[in-house]
Amino acid sequence: METTALLVLDLCGTFAFALNGALTALRATRLDIVGVVTLGMITALGGGTIRDVFLDSLPPATFLDGRYLAVAAAGGLIAFVAGSHLERINRTINVLDAAGLSLFAVTGALKAVDLGFGPAQAVIVGVLTAVGGGTLRDVLIRRVPSVLTSGLYAIPALVGATAVVVVELLDARGPIATIGAATLCFLIRMVGVHFDVHAPAPPGSPPPEEA
Amino acid sequence: METTALLVLDLCGTFAFALNGALTALRATRLDIVGVVTLGMITALGGGTIRDVFLDSLPPATFLDGRYLAVAAAGGLIAFVAGSHLERINRTINVLDAAGLSLFAVTGALKAVDLGFGPAQAVIVGVLTAVGGGTLRDVLIRRVPSVLTSGLYAIPALVGATAVVVVELLDARGPIATIGAATLCFLIRMVGVHFDVHAPAPPGSPPPEEA
Amino acid sequence: METTALLVLDLCGTFAFALNGALTALRATRLDIVGVVTLGMITALGGGTIRDVFLDSLPPATFLDGRYLAVAAAGGLIAFVAGSHLERINRTINVLDAAGLSLFAVTGALKAVDLGFGPAQAVIVGVLTAVGGGTLRDVLIRRVPSVLTSGLYAIPALVGATAVVVVELLDARGPIATIGAATLCFLIRMVGVHFDVHAPAPPGSPPPEEA
Repeated sequence: METTALLVLDLCGTFAFALNGALTALRATRLDIVGVVTLGMITALGGGTIRDVFLDSLPPATFLDGRYLAVAAAGGLIAFVAGSHLERINRTINVLDAAGLSLFAVTGALKAVDLGFGPAQAVIVGVLTAVGGGTLRDVLIRRVPSVLTSGLYAIPALVGATAVVVVELLDARGPIATIGAATLCFLIRMVGVHFDVHAPAPPGSPPPEEA
Repeated sequence: METTALLVLDLCGTFAFALNGALTALRATRLDIVGVVTLGMITALGGGTIRDVFLDSLPPATFLDGRYLAVAAAGGLIAFVAGSHLERINRTINVLDAAGLSLFAVTGALKAVDLGFGPAQAVIVGVLTAVGGGTLRDVLIRRVPSVLTSGLYAIPALVGATAVVVVELLDARGPIATIGAATLCFLIRMVGVHFDVHAPAPPGSPPPEEA
Repeated sequence: METTALLVLDLCGTFAFALNGALTALRATRLDIVGVVTLGMITALGGGTIRDVFLDSLPPATFLDGRYLAVAAAGGLIAFVAGSHLERINRTINVLDAAGLSLFAVTGALKAVDLGFGPAQAVIVGVLTAVGGGTLRDVLIRRVPSVLTSGLYAIPALVGATAVVVVELLDARGPIATIGAATLCFLIRMVGVHFDVHAPAPPGSPPPEEA
């Protein structure tokens, strides 16, 4: 029961990442159908692939599971076909993307814990799972990954992954704790989007502008 | 006998990829000898390395086999030494590159099948083997990978890999089927080059121009 | 005893790479704290991660060992906090970076030898360990990796890795030979920095300028 709910949530996150990733790529550069679908799939599945390289859990789980491949490809295809109409529901897509970020951070960290990795490793892998796909996409469309420059994207993932690992260390794991950690990440991310909060810039650097 | 023929073809494809990859890199940016040879080798061997990560078949086969390393390095070195003279045989190099694309798509998909992966996974891995090296090169020389933007490059690889996997599902594998699938990929690629065919762009986007 | 000395040297190299990597990233583009620390860590740990993918030695050793993670994160954080003051000790950082290059080339090649890989593979892996992290950083901040374009960076690593592999083939391994190979790499690198030596450019290309 719990596993099914987690799977459904994870597939929703995958779909949101694929849709949002493909739309971001479409806005940034000229692409054909191969590019849009590929970049949607890379955004959705890239983080999990990086996670599985670091956890020595190859072949990557999302590559083996046809449902993830299908959901990610569908997100990319929908962005290709209906891209210009989807701009209007940008806010909805942002919410879905934050949900994906939260789920990936928490499930990525839990996978590391389950495989016997230490707390620092689990937190790092949770963050990599959450931000890795978008980073690969940005590199491919020749942008400095937005996660490195501004906004509040890696930090909520870091908080969510740390929360779920702390719960694990306290031996208090359970669905409520997992959902709590993901919700914490989600709320920080949405506050960041709503109030346009940025991570600290180096001392003496000029204030951030819009890219 | 068949294996030897396949090896020779695969080494020819590797050489063509290294030569073409290094020449493409040379045209795009200023490089020294390290850059030209490295980018030739990455173009030739990068797809197979990505393939072997996804198939959990590390260390990468082309890294272990000194013949692939030598042939790829030779292609890069020849491009370094004779780059300006090779522009005149650009058409020949394009043909060799299309042959490499076809071979890599087909042999990549077959390797996945042989290791027990499903049909969708085999097709994906075939395409990654064929286009992965050029994509890595383009990222390193700071181009949006051409496979994502225009031309007909991933699609012939997709058709070739799908063909060889379908043949496998029909239990009709054999040298003729393998060569047939590779030839199909090769012909689609050459038709694309000759008539300047592009993959579909998103609805409403301006017509493609020369990059 | 020898192992402890090597560990201390390796951690010093990791710290120097993280500091230098983060400072280079800071000079090249606008980043926030996540970006500076991440790019420092990627510069310091990326080469070892690539090495361990090629050697099928996952999970990556530097990811498992908390000391490497802590030292790399510290280097990135110091660059974030004190970046503008560190410009004055640029020469010291260059020396530390050359030391890191030498250590990584030699220890990377030795790890491959110890795992039973051939000489060509060991040399390639030594060079990848030494230059891989900086290459990943440059790709993320959207620069053509400097190792591909100018200066003398991969070549000293190649000489150092080759030297240690030759010593191994002659069955003369020992601390003196290892330190000798690393020193050779270090000296070539420092001569290159001091006299502004560049690797050969393709025939007919214009002389290198400052980027």
